[in-house]
Amino acid sequence: MADLAAVLSQADSNLNSSLDRLSDLVRIKSISTDPAFAAECRKAAQWLVDSLTELGFSASVRDTEGHPMVVAHHDGPDGAPHVLFYGHYDVQPVDPLELWTSDPFDPGIKELSPGRKVITGRGTSDDKGQLLTFVEACRAYKETQGDLPCRVTILFEGEEESGSKSLKPFLDANAEELKADLAMVCDTGMWNAETPSISVSLRGLTGEEITIKAASRDLHSGHYGGNAANPIHILSKILGDIHDENGWVTIPHFYDGVHETPDNIKSMWEGLGAPENFLSAVGLSVPSGESDRTILERAWARPTAEVNGITGGYSGEGFKTVIAAQASAKVSFRLVGDQDPHAVRSNFREFVKARIPADCSVDFEEHGTSGAIHLPFDSPALAKAVAVLEEEWGNPAAIIGMGGSIPIVGDFQSKLGMESLLVGFALEDDCIHSPNEKYDLRSFHMGIRSWVRIMDALAR
Amino acid sequence: MADLAAVLSQADSNLNSSLDRLSDLVRIKSISTDPAFAAECRKAAQWLVDSLTELGFSASVRDTEGHPMVVAHHDGPDGAPHVLFYGHYDVQPVDPLELWTSDPFDPGIKELSPGRKVITGRGTSDDKGQLLTFVEACRAYKETQGDLPCRVTILFEGEEESGSKSLKPFLDANAEELKADLAMVCDTGMWNAETPSISVSLRGLTGEEITIKAASRDLHSGHYGGNAANPIHILSKILGDIHDENGWVTIPHFYDGVHETPDNIKSMWEGLGAPENFLSAVGLSVPSGESDRTILERAWARPTAEVNGITGGYSGEGFKTVIAAQASAKVSFRLVGDQDPHAVRSNFREFVKARIPADCSVDFEEHGTSGAIHLPFDSPALAKAVAVLEEEWGNPAAIIGMGGSIPIVGDFQSKLGMESLLVGFALEDDCIHSPNEKYDLRSFHMGIRSWVRIMDALAR
Repeated sequence: MADLAAVLSQADSNLNSSLDRLSDLVRIKSISTDPAFAAECRKAAQWLVDSLTELGFSASVRDTEGHPMVVAHHDGPDGAPHVLFYGHYDVQPVDPLELWTSDPFDPGIKELSPGRKVITGRGTSDDKGQLLTFVEACRAYKETQGDLPCRVTILFEGEEESGSKSLKPFLDANAEELKADLAMVCDTGMWNAETPSISVSLRGLTGEEITIKAASRDLHSGHYGGNAANPIHILSKILGDIHDENGWVTIPHFYDGVHETPDNIKSMWEGLGAPENFLSAVGLSVPSGESDRTILERAWARPTAEVNGITGGYSGEGFKTVIAAQASAKVSFRLVGDQDPHAVRSNFREFVKARIPADCSVDFEEHGTSGAIHLPFDSPALAKAVAVLEEEWGNPAAIIGMGGSIPIVGDFQSKLGMESLLVGFALEDDCIHSPNEKYDLRSFHMGIRSWVRIMDALAR
Repeated sequence: MADLAAVLSQADSNLNSSLDRLSDLVRIKSISTDPAFAAECRKAAQWLVDSLTELGFSASVRDTEGHPMVVAHHDGPDGAPHVLFYGHYDVQPVDPLELWTSDPFDPGIKELSPGRKVITGRGTSDDKGQLLTFVEACRAYKETQGDLPCRVTILFEGEEESGSKSLKPFLDANAEELKADLAMVCDTGMWNAETPSISVSLRGLTGEEITIKAASRDLHSGHYGGNAANPIHILSKILGDIHDENGWVTIPHFYDGVHETPDNIKSMWEGLGAPENFLSAVGLSVPSGESDRTILERAWARPTAEVNGITGGYSGEGFKTVIAAQASAKVSFRLVGDQDPHAVRSNFREFVKARIPADCSVDFEEHGTSGAIHLPFDSPALAKAVAVLEEEWGNPAAIIGMGGSIPIVGDFQSKLGMESLLVGFALEDDCIHSPNEKYDLRSFHMGIRSWVRIMDALAR
């Protein structure tokens, strides 16, 4: 067995150099949704391969139709469990850039309040900082024990923020190589800064873009106003119709497959209480959405329809009295239970088509499709992780749901027959997907130590 | 009296050089709504001053808080009437640039169909080509008669496409200098390519921009979806609520001051029939707006509410699962009868405010305010213009309304006690305010000849 204390101590000693390595990775502008950054995505993949090779992994950049994967293998002691660790090296776009207080791709250390230091930059939390907690845990093992306690396979993808289009074909084509006893995913958050958490449910996603087309060109609103269809009006009406006055989604059959939260889960969530400063931290006070549900139910166990972007007509400086030729919106649905993401898409399309005037048209574009995920509450791996997280953090780990989507967890279930352990150290105020993303140094440091402990526990 | 035939013949001989001068003016990128083009606006003003000076006018560029005015004076024979000619040298923005088939600021001659030639470029029709019809008419007089038949004052502004903010103060400060017997405005269109037209009513305008603010930053739609207010939803709901299912505007008191069209006017409009290809020319077929009104009523005598632009969240390539911090829209109202443009603004603001959740806010920005205009049907100047337009074009002139706004006509009434004669030669398919703006060579040529005839008739 490994000398756990020595490994933890090495992780502590390494912290500054671990932060330097995170900074190097954050400097690579691996924005996956924008084709202009494709070379940067590949650069991030190569950086990871080089790092893992240096640690003794057999690592390679693996081409896909989109951004490449990173796959790495390391043997473990005879009879040790085999784990697959997953993370993603791609990041969200950084607009609106003017709201960042420092360069999103030039990370720095800031002290938010006395003793609370963070590292700033796009991807520090989501997911470069988180995936490096595991890599740095492996480093501490290698440097002190010369080996890892488990057999480890690593899979890092570069399309998590843009629909993971290459992931399913890659898993299909490489199922034998990637299959392990257990997947470990570090792309989730803590209940609060003191409470480590393990996520056992994730919402699914259907992403869709609609473009409504009316006149063959932009029109003068004086000449045509009152007679010509205005695509912004049509779009606004459709989007305004999606929710009823109680915040419920009105699209027919939308709630097919949504189950009521079981009483035992509800009780557990009531025990957690309301999340601290969840709305007030972002300047809000009135919960939106389904008015007859609690905040945690709405965040973890209820589906949503959200418009993520809208554009049409003139939105520059000043004013232009135009009736636009077209208007478009990006809409996403968060899914729970057994909602079928394809049925949600087709039901939404019918809902939209029924609202298009005879002389106008609508184009649809698909953006991402994944079902909701539910993981077992009673696995031995979960029990071990709960125990060692409490040792590291001094507080019992919370078993929680997650509002976001990590589609690969479903693919691990369906394609590789593997359950996942979802442990992450992000905090509510990390501003992931927003300007001024950061990761607490404590999350990074104790995250590394947590993976050291989890690997140790799984090997015993 | 001038030798009318000689003047008309000179206008014919000049046509090619007149087109060269129009091309020179169109090349100046005088987009008034975008501050980046301020120097180009001044350049266009100076170009006009130079041209008018060359024709014997006493002309000058006159500074304002915004873009400068051009004012020019030319004496006429003793006892001749004094006319004030108005036009604007500023143009609309050119986006979306990719829809132009040629450079908007590099004009060229095209043959649209056998014998039908046009000049292409931003402002060829609105309003650089139209204002030059009058300048070139003056040129033909000067070159053949050595004088003009009337005393002429010219006023060209540079903010017509961006709210004319400097116009009222300028008229107030220079009322004595600008006052004449009659104003002539060339910023309107023909009923069709064969039928010259004089406009006797113009809709007013209230322009307003609303920005709805929710969270203090963009949010992850997985973490916050279902709990956080989405400003795009709030905005869509408001915009979707502005019209009822019959196309009427639902804002309380919006129709205060709207009068039913008198029967005699309705009969005259019925005599004109429906405008040719009005909707089909732009790819539409189903009239929008108030479902119980005719197309001409909706275009000339009924008010509208149109969203001219909308923006919020992520609208770039790909997808971003974000709940935006804010969303905004530019909205304009076309006004008729005695609608008070200020009351329309404040009623709209109340309508919006009533729909903002307690933890969200709305900012308003004012963009342009003008009442509807009604000109007399029975003035001697109108009768003279009707007669000579028929001589030039071979068809009786139509007395029509106009859906657009030319706020200065109201200011001429209220500030200078002067009625206006609105004659213009734009055609429905000129694509003003749109990509591929053009002006028919026939409009330009016969427009110049029409002003030669009108000045001659007014002087008799």
